[in-house]
Amino acid sequence: MREVAILGIGQTVVEEQWDKSMREIGGEAGFAAMQDAGLERVDALYVGNMLSSLISGQSQLGTFFSDWIGLWQQEAVKVEAACASGAAAFRAGLIAVASGDVDSALVVGVEKMTDKAGHDVTAALATAADADYEVEQGVSFVGLNALIMRRYMHEFGWKHTDFAPFSVNAHANAMHNPFARLHEKISVEKYEKASMVATPISLLDASPIGDGAAAAVIVPAEKVINHAGRPRVMVSASAAATDTIAVQSRRDPLFLQAAYDSSKRAYEMANIEPKGVDVFELHDAFSIMSVLSLEACGFAERGQGPRLGLDNEISIQGRVPVCTRGGLKARGHPVGATGMYQIVEVVQQLRGECGPTQVDGAKIGMAQNIGGSGATILTHILKTY
Amino acid sequence: MREVAILGIGQTVVEEQWDKSMREIGGEAGFAAMQDAGLERVDALYVGNMLSSLISGQSQLGTFFSDWIGLWQQEAVKVEAACASGAAAFRAGLIAVASGDVDSALVVGVEKMTDKAGHDVTAALATAADADYEVEQGVSFVGLNALIMRRYMHEFGWKHTDFAPFSVNAHANAMHNPFARLHEKISVEKYEKASMVATPISLLDASPIGDGAAAAVIVPAEKVINHAGRPRVMVSASAAATDTIAVQSRRDPLFLQAAYDSSKRAYEMANIEPKGVDVFELHDAFSIMSVLSLEACGFAERGQGPRLGLDNEISIQGRVPVCTRGGLKARGHPVGATGMYQIVEVVQQLRGECGPTQVDGAKIGMAQNIGGSGATILTHILKTY
Repeated sequence: MREVAILGIGQTVVEEQWDKSMREIGGEAGFAAMQDAGLERVDALYVGNMLSSLISGQSQLGTFFSDWIGLWQQEAVKVEAACASGAAAFRAGLIAVASGDVDSALVVGVEKMTDKAGHDVTAALATAADADYEVEQGVSFVGLNALIMRRYMHEFGWKHTDFAPFSVNAHANAMHNPFARLHEKISVEKYEKASMVATPISLLDASPIGDGAAAAVIVPAEKVINHAGRPRVMVSASAAATDTIAVQSRRDPLFLQAAYDSSKRAYEMANIEPKGVDVFELHDAFSIMSVLSLEACGFAERGQGPRLGLDNEISIQGRVPVCTRGGLKARGHPVGATGMYQIVEVVQQLRGECGPTQVDGAKIGMAQNIGGSGATILTHILKTY
Repeated sequence: MREVAILGIGQTVVEEQWDKSMREIGGEAGFAAMQDAGLERVDALYVGNMLSSLISGQSQLGTFFSDWIGLWQQEAVKVEAACASGAAAFRAGLIAVASGDVDSALVVGVEKMTDKAGHDVTAALATAADADYEVEQGVSFVGLNALIMRRYMHEFGWKHTDFAPFSVNAHANAMHNPFARLHEKISVEKYEKASMVATPISLLDASPIGDGAAAAVIVPAEKVINHAGRPRVMVSASAAATDTIAVQSRRDPLFLQAAYDSSKRAYEMANIEPKGVDVFELHDAFSIMSVLSLEACGFAERGQGPRLGLDNEISIQGRVPVCTRGGLKARGHPVGATGMYQIVEVVQQLRGECGPTQVDGAKIGMAQNIGGSGATILTHILKTY
């Protein structure tokens, strides 16, 4: 397969965009990426989305957006893997371009979630879990993550406040991201006082939903020589892995096997070790997921993930900067779009466009997108020179 | 990209499978295909499905089925393009194997539709149309097709009875397919007396829904030398194209532009002309779609599609045999699975396994899967020697 590069990126702000339809939101990000790439046409469109049929009564989003964006007659398809839909669509576009099947691809991750009442959205999100063996028992998606977090605290002896740095770091970084949903600096004290959603997960452990879209244009690497004077961002690894869909079926519910498998494969493809990663956009849907992701990807020993936060290793100046644009926690989590926000944010880092949250000299960035409670995990590594 | 072949196929009967869950139905087809291929593992799983989140409360079907089928840790993803989801998943698996990204792929098209009341299913199917500009006006999916059929009859002067041969042919062929939903021979008289669903579409113009799954295993062609003494079935072309999602936006609602575009590209890839196709599994969701598909793919002049039926050219002995296993009309239309049923049926023809409905000496078969009212169309050409 040939090498590929990311020629353009685009994103919308994450918020309650009640004045805009899903069409407009996805289009805004798609158009922005096409403009950033300097292209008027691409060969194919890949859309990542989880909830449009449930929330907006709209299926067939590939063609829905190829029509709206003006890619008439071109190939278009939707890819879904719950909250990992964005990265799954990115991977589909990537393989299509890398294989030579198409010469350019637009990938749009989009989610319009806030048009329904909270309980409807909670029910829709629960479709990521096992309908027969989890949801049928009355457990919600945050509830499943709470069970994992509680067990983790019990097993390894951490207190709730030990998870504070992940939330504090994400909120601090989001202050400098105009596309973030939350612009509010928080303290450890505030974290400790936050209301519980599903104990031990509080409001400040959980990422907020939102309406938003993020997009990227993928082309063969040889076509990108000094585009607009910007560093060329290449895709150096793409890997996907799965685990059981229900948490109860896992050999070890405190280990993200699919994060381990997909990151291991990605490191091999990129020919690097974890310490070679300059910036890591991880999937902090809940604080516990940040911890488990860091452990499975080789940044901490098992049971020691919280230590990275407490030692300030996850900040912009740290050993493994995470959530540099706010992460899911503060940029927001428009579920099917999140994987594409992560890709866009890593590109921004490698281009050096992140202002106060720029990681100095970032050359290699990793993005990891998680579907369900660790069931589907995709890891991508991008690089520049 | 390397050449690929279909090593194994599997399918379930299409019917109201109230005693089986979606899991069991998809698994049954997937296991059958793996067994037919003689494999216990594949590298990746691609699932085509449209309605599972709406009907069964289950998203993330890729991982849902990789878990159930026992492909633990392997890559898995769901692909959706309304009623073209099956072929879209097949194409995703195809590109992954052809590119060298994976060495084997299982593709499962699955739909569990009959667990909900009819009006719920009608509403779910309508998500294939444009939610804002079509469904909002109160039009159902069959209603949209009725508008197209009525206009076609007006424009080209055909009577309702002129469409009878498509339904009669499909029902006759399904008599010999044990997996078909309907085993009932019909006559032109019966067709003429059928109740209207949305005039001019009658019960005998419309395909029945159903629960079902169909699957195939894709591997590099060089790995298939005389497998189980069966002819080697190769994929010689795969192409996807789109049109506007809403019928009202089309330059010409009586021409399937995406069928024309995808079949033209497929003919070029396979280096054949329409007359080189020995068997054509087309997307007869409604009789009018058979007609428009035959015209767009070069088998009839515009406005002359019904002539192929009236002249008996679509039968097993005809110039362009269609729906040889019953088509959507009589095999049944479990929407996200249909594209994979078509692939499986073409493989059966090329292997010479179709008994009384075997097309003599069939070497080249085409399958065309349509999403929405012509919005997403995929054309695949398979061949053997």
